[in-house]
Amino acid sequence: MSADPTSAGGGADADLAGAASDPASAGLPAAVDIFDTTLRDGAQFEGISLSVDDKLRVAEQLDWLGVAWIEGGYPQANPKDAEFFERAPRELRLTSAELVAFGSTRRPAGRVDDDPTLRAVLEAGTSTVCIVGKSWDFHVREALRTTEAEGVAMVAESVAHLRSDGRRVFFDAEHFFDGYAANPEFALAVLEAAATAGAECVVLCDTNGGSLPHQVQAVTTEVVRHFAGDVAVGIHTQNDSGCAVANSVAAVVGGATHVQGTINGYGERTGNANLMSVIPDLTLKLGVATLPEGRMERLTVVSRHVAELVNIPPNPADPYVGTSAFAHKGGLHTSALGRAGGATYEHIDPALVGNSTRVLVSDLGGRAGMAMKAQELGVELDDRAAATLTEQLKVLESQGWVFEAADASLELLMRRAGGWEPDFFEVEAYRVSSYHREGRIAIDGGLETATEATVKIWVGEERLAAVGEGNGPVNALDRALRNALNGRYPALERIHLTDFKVRVLDGGAATGAVVRVLVDSTDGERAWTTVGVDTNVIEASWQALVDSIVYGLSHSER
Amino acid sequence: MSADPTSAGGGADADLAGAASDPASAGLPAAVDIFDTTLRDGAQFEGISLSVDDKLRVAEQLDWLGVAWIEGGYPQANPKDAEFFERAPRELRLTSAELVAFGSTRRPAGRVDDDPTLRAVLEAGTSTVCIVGKSWDFHVREALRTTEAEGVAMVAESVAHLRSDGRRVFFDAEHFFDGYAANPEFALAVLEAAATAGAECVVLCDTNGGSLPHQVQAVTTEVVRHFAGDVAVGIHTQNDSGCAVANSVAAVVGGATHVQGTINGYGERTGNANLMSVIPDLTLKLGVATLPEGRMERLTVVSRHVAELVNIPPNPADPYVGTSAFAHKGGLHTSALGRAGGATYEHIDPALVGNSTRVLVSDLGGRAGMAMKAQELGVELDDRAAATLTEQLKVLESQGWVFEAADASLELLMRRAGGWEPDFFEVEAYRVSSYHREGRIAIDGGLETATEATVKIWVGEERLAAVGEGNGPVNALDRALRNALNGRYPALERIHLTDFKVRVLDGGAATGAVVRVLVDSTDGERAWTTVGVDTNVIEASWQALVDSIVYGLSHSER
Repeated sequence: MSADPTSAGGGADADLAGAASDPASAGLPAAVDIFDTTLRDGAQFEGISLSVDDKLRVAEQLDWLGVAWIEGGYPQANPKDAEFFERAPRELRLTSAELVAFGSTRRPAGRVDDDPTLRAVLEAGTSTVCIVGKSWDFHVREALRTTEAEGVAMVAESVAHLRSDGRRVFFDAEHFFDGYAANPEFALAVLEAAATAGAECVVLCDTNGGSLPHQVQAVTTEVVRHFAGDVAVGIHTQNDSGCAVANSVAAVVGGATHVQGTINGYGERTGNANLMSVIPDLTLKLGVATLPEGRMERLTVVSRHVAELVNIPPNPADPYVGTSAFAHKGGLHTSALGRAGGATYEHIDPALVGNSTRVLVSDLGGRAGMAMKAQELGVELDDRAAATLTEQLKVLESQGWVFEAADASLELLMRRAGGWEPDFFEVEAYRVSSYHREGRIAIDGGLETATEATVKIWVGEERLAAVGEGNGPVNALDRALRNALNGRYPALERIHLTDFKVRVLDGGAATGAVVRVLVDSTDGERAWTTVGVDTNVIEASWQALVDSIVYGLSHSER
Repeated sequence: MSADPTSAGGGADADLAGAASDPASAGLPAAVDIFDTTLRDGAQFEGISLSVDDKLRVAEQLDWLGVAWIEGGYPQANPKDAEFFERAPRELRLTSAELVAFGSTRRPAGRVDDDPTLRAVLEAGTSTVCIVGKSWDFHVREALRTTEAEGVAMVAESVAHLRSDGRRVFFDAEHFFDGYAANPEFALAVLEAAATAGAECVVLCDTNGGSLPHQVQAVTTEVVRHFAGDVAVGIHTQNDSGCAVANSVAAVVGGATHVQGTINGYGERTGNANLMSVIPDLTLKLGVATLPEGRMERLTVVSRHVAELVNIPPNPADPYVGTSAFAHKGGLHTSALGRAGGATYEHIDPALVGNSTRVLVSDLGGRAGMAMKAQELGVELDDRAAATLTEQLKVLESQGWVFEAADASLELLMRRAGGWEPDFFEVEAYRVSSYHREGRIAIDGGLETATEATVKIWVGEERLAAVGEGNGPVNALDRALRNALNGRYPALERIHLTDFKVRVLDGGAATGAVVRVLVDSTDGERAWTTVGVDTNVIEASWQALVDSIVYGLSHSER
């Protein structure tokens, strides 16, 4: 599982080629262990609040991806984390990853055998534990209010205590790079104490995230040389300088063989090293093994699935796994791409990480881009239809419609431009009404708001009207429409909305501005996104809702 | 304006200290020119679509920030960019920045004096121009379908043509790092052709974004040595490996003195180098001058203002300028922060970039964090109020309320926990109804959706009811509430909503799930955010709307 830490080296001249190459010839380690801390450090990301169930589901994703270690939480600081470690052995079937419990060293002037943090770490019951200790002398003095000697003793005794209980121990050296810059002797003394006491990996943490890659590479190289293979050296970076990924890569170039990070870079403040970038950077660019064979292509789906689990919208611009990562617009690029193949404008084959090339339609794209998009969507578009569509898109885009994120609406528009008219139903009118009385603070448990919609549609020559109640206008409209269609399209049973997003397009006058609504839907097999734009959020939602159902029906009925 | 390119050097051992230091002693350039390409490359970001007015306003922000160069657009490819260059001299009063027009070299086997791109670049009328040419032999063969000799001639003749018209010329060497890895002789020959023809800066572009920092640093060092000061060397990176910022820094460590990037890292696919990180990394960490004296503290406000102009929500986790960049939650960090000061857990003083420390309240924060938050908001919170609030927050957070982004709602909750009850008005009931008939495709210009709200409130012993019409439910409710209050609170005239965001909290059942609404408001002086949570988007919006108005009134009436 662990790579040979003695194979360190690298340096600025290592490996100039962009493609993966033999790591040994460049002095790089052949492999590194991936240590995921999404469930511990990642959970500190602003906006993330994970239930124990959420944590178990994220852990399953991590195991499926193939990381070596899953840091499950900090049981002493968080009761939910203690519950996670209690339930995990019963409820998780991990195939390759191992769980790690996190804690800190004993308190200053305390004893290891009655320390609550160390007890909680042991009670988590994992065979491997990770504890953090201070390696910056300033911190030992100012935050711990103790001596350097006691700071070293806290580390040594805590590691020894965990080892004496038979646990494998990783040691996170907090603020290592700041500490090494201020007082390298002390910083190294802390690492030595951990290693001598039996830690099998000392992890250099850029806790404040302020370091830059050439600094990290130089310091890691020195530490790796210092220990000469006696202990593995790891890296843990934060993104405060915008360099967390690069700093992780730089540490591996400097000889580190254990890399800590999180899914999608979640983490406190600006986040941790994004494993979705670090893993392919190391393996695809430098030839350093990270995941088991065949797992790299799961990267995109794991990124998006975990984003759903933690309820943070995925960043389209994320390297490797983002929906924009291999998206091309602009006449120059799209036409060159069509001519010379992906290699011209893509740094890797997107399939390697489970992603794919997308062609964007926009005012910069032109005819060539639109033809490629039609091909991607499987729509035949003759010259006349393409011309019609170009004119329509100009008008719609000037009104605030954006189809880049709404392929399903674009597909319907393309097919309509080619003469197709869906005949599932025709809308005559809708009305939706919400009523609320008294008691507006949720904690007081006020009366629930009641919402009711009526929808009038035509199916062929038949006029259908129905009512729907719901816990919101979109829900009520959705139900009313389904009630009106009343079993006519059995496929409708499988189609449901999974998410909707509302965006105000003119920030100057929020409640009077144009609103764009995106609706995500699924039929259990495929997922699609539709768009609606109007000054009225209800009308914009309705447009996206109708498009979603027409798209779903037209694909299931074919 | 331009730094001395001969002061190159650096290397992996340069500058181990985290703090800014004397750049000369580390072999770094004393200063670099910042070249912003938000208006050209940044405009390729998925979701950005800029009008000429938008572009002019972004340019003003860039000048106010103090970048040396503003690449305004690609006039031949985009008619809007041509209009920008036409209007800019009349409508912009630039104090320090200079506009640059972008184009490409002449076509293969074409002539410079009738080349449409070169003509458009000259017609833009800027004293400095930037043209891109190919430096990867593979590209010359496969995308241009011409010989290497012709590839070099295209560059040399195009630069010479622009120089003969008296323009200063920057040369973007497209795909330089891929090209240098594949065929260094050809890649250098292209740079030499540009330099010999009179380009004053050759910019090494990592067009596909696949390079890593140690590679960029090594190659840049070699190029800088090769030219030995005859021409300035620049860097232009994309973020496809997650290393655009680090690659820019690495190039400067390698001797580059011209740095291209964009505000907030906007750009095609995964974006360009984020100047909001590159600038403080270079100046605050390495002591390399970037902006004029006193401008660094404008970084945060420019970042957020441009995000509004281009209509992309700012990323809270952005280094230096994000709202989470100096936000602290978690008992350990917040208590240590209180005790030892920011230096303990912050890599820089946030005021240096115009940002500030924030304390987050969450289930991890505990009492210490809440006390700091109350202090930050100027609310007095005694022990009993704090205990009440802690219990309330537990319940509310379990229901999906999040106050991290909604300080105004949190302040109201804190003040209420301390016994305060706002008496501006009390809500009895509201109703809101939307009606739409026929014609659902916007391009057909269907009937507008009509929305009407009624609101019943009490002010003291007086019962007030009013109707409001609007172009959406929030707008109609807002107007009905204002109509009901009918001039009672003159301060209300100044208060208006600027944005609202809707988030579905459970992705499994969109139209039946809990919905969180954030409303941004302003009174022209301050801005605030409120939150509402309910299964019904109308009710959640109403809660946030009422909180917004109560907060605004309570601050203006005091």
